[in-house]
Amino acid sequence: MKANKFYPALLFLSLFFTTAMIGQENKESKKRYIKVPEGYLMVLLQGDNILKEIEAFAIAEKIPSANFTGMGFVNMKFGFFNFDTKEFMPKEFKDVELASMNGTIAWQNGKVSIHSHGVVTDRNFEAHGGHILDGTVGTGSVEIMILVHDKPLERKFEKDLGANVLCLDKCK
Amino acid sequence: MKANKFYPALLFLSLFFTTAMIGQENKESKKRYIKVPEGYLMVLLQGDNILKEIEAFAIAEKIPSANFTGMGFVNMKFGFFNFDTKEFMPKEFKDVELASMNGTIAWQNGKVSIHSHGVVTDRNFEAHGGHILDGTVGTGSVEIMILVHDKPLERKFEKDLGANVLCLDKCK
Amino acid sequence: MKANKFYPALLFLSLFFTTAMIGQENKESKKRYIKVPEGYLMVLLQGDNILKEIEAFAIAEKIPSANFTGMGFVNMKFGFFNFDTKEFMPKEFKDVELASMNGTIAWQNGKVSIHSHGVVTDRNFEAHGGHILDGTVGTGSVEIMILVHDKPLERKFEKDLGANVLCLDKCK
Repeated sequence: MKANKFYPALLFLSLFFTTAMIGQENKESKKRYIKVPEGYLMVLLQGDNILKEIEAFAIAEKIPSANFTGMGFVNMKFGFFNFDTKEFMPKEFKDVELASMNGTIAWQNGKVSIHSHGVVTDRNFEAHGGHILDGTVGTGSVEIMILVHDKPLERKFEKDLGANVLCLDKCK
Repeated sequence: MKANKFYPALLFLSLFFTTAMIGQENKESKKRYIKVPEGYLMVLLQGDNILKEIEAFAIAEKIPSANFTGMGFVNMKFGFFNFDTKEFMPKEFKDVELASMNGTIAWQNGKVSIHSHGVVTDRNFEAHGGHILDGTVGTGSVEIMILVHDKPLERKFEKDLGANVLCLDKCK
Repeated sequence: MKANKFYPALLFLSLFFTTAMIGQENKESKKRYIKVPEGYLMVLLQGDNILKEIEAFAIAEKIPSANFTGMGFVNMKFGFFNFDTKEFMPKEFKDVELASMNGTIAWQNGKVSIHSHGVVTDRNFEAHGGHILDGTVGTGSVEIMILVHDKPLERKFEKDLGANVLCLDKCK
């Protein structure tokens, strides 16, 4: 039969997609956090985007608001707010220990709003840090303890400060 | 009538005091913390004195003892204890990110006793820090998570150490 | 009686051992932590080994897993992982403030496994830090808040990373 010559190609394609799907499933189903009495314990692995994983967690678990602390090994981009230009000046630090991370989870215009500061230390044990703009897990992991609150909290952009401020009352 | 010429002055004084009182009330009634399951979430705003607000909170809410973590944007005065002179050598850092703050609330001689350490980062992302002597919120906010304990705890000045130590048993 | 001349020596020896035993007992019975609603508050004193005290606590209180934060005054040895030699390069910092400490307690091969990062600040208020290899309390104290979880957690050495990773599922 003529169709026979397509069999190897079909087999290859079939195997390729199955493998890709399993890989995808493994990556998706990889448990990144567990429930603990005061909230959640999160463990991120090499390559994970830290802010994106916290955001995905907040959406999936419908977190009203939370505080978190963490540490690990990372590539981190910090920003320092320039009040003249009203922009964050960025700087990246590669392959550094995350000595501390402190932050809060809230909501802003229907989206998750994460505010987080960190300190990283390099191979000379010197410490750097600031406002976290972005970051991924390096060769190691990042462990984060998330204390979940029962009140939905929002952030509001305060023009005078050039900063998002967490509203304890309703944002006005 | 003779009194008529005082009317504008009276009106002005009346308006002045009313405005001042409303301003005062607004400042006083500004909600700086809310109750959450594990304790309180505090948000301090530009100009707030960090240690004084934590102290006022501890008195108002009759906090037996607590641990706290925080971060934000600050002007901070740190001290490093000089064992020869038994005094803190101070240094101030202006307009810096508060990358981390860790502390405890206890009592000493009937007064609130706060022990807190912090790390600040400057526009070059360099980290500095130490024992917090004093600090105010800069152009931004400071967010503090306060874990409240159920046991009243006291601190005692230990002469040999030149330091206040938290007593887990009764202070002797 | 001939024995009489030994009496002072016996008295001295008796006093010496009694004093030594009382000293030992005081040191052993010194309460280093108390139960609080979310876990334990630990206060370590001058000379205490930080990791060893946390380990002894985890064994004594049968802690399934925990997160902790702390600060104080310390002598600290940090390590930075060298991926070429797969070893930690160590560096010690003496008589420094512990500005922050963040860590987790888990188990590995039947033994307590502590993973902790810290930031220390020196007399010039410069910050250093990294992965804590060892540390003792300096002239002062170290205060640690330990958030205890209800799930037993294990760590597994990941060869590719050269690092111990906390397993949220069973370690495979």
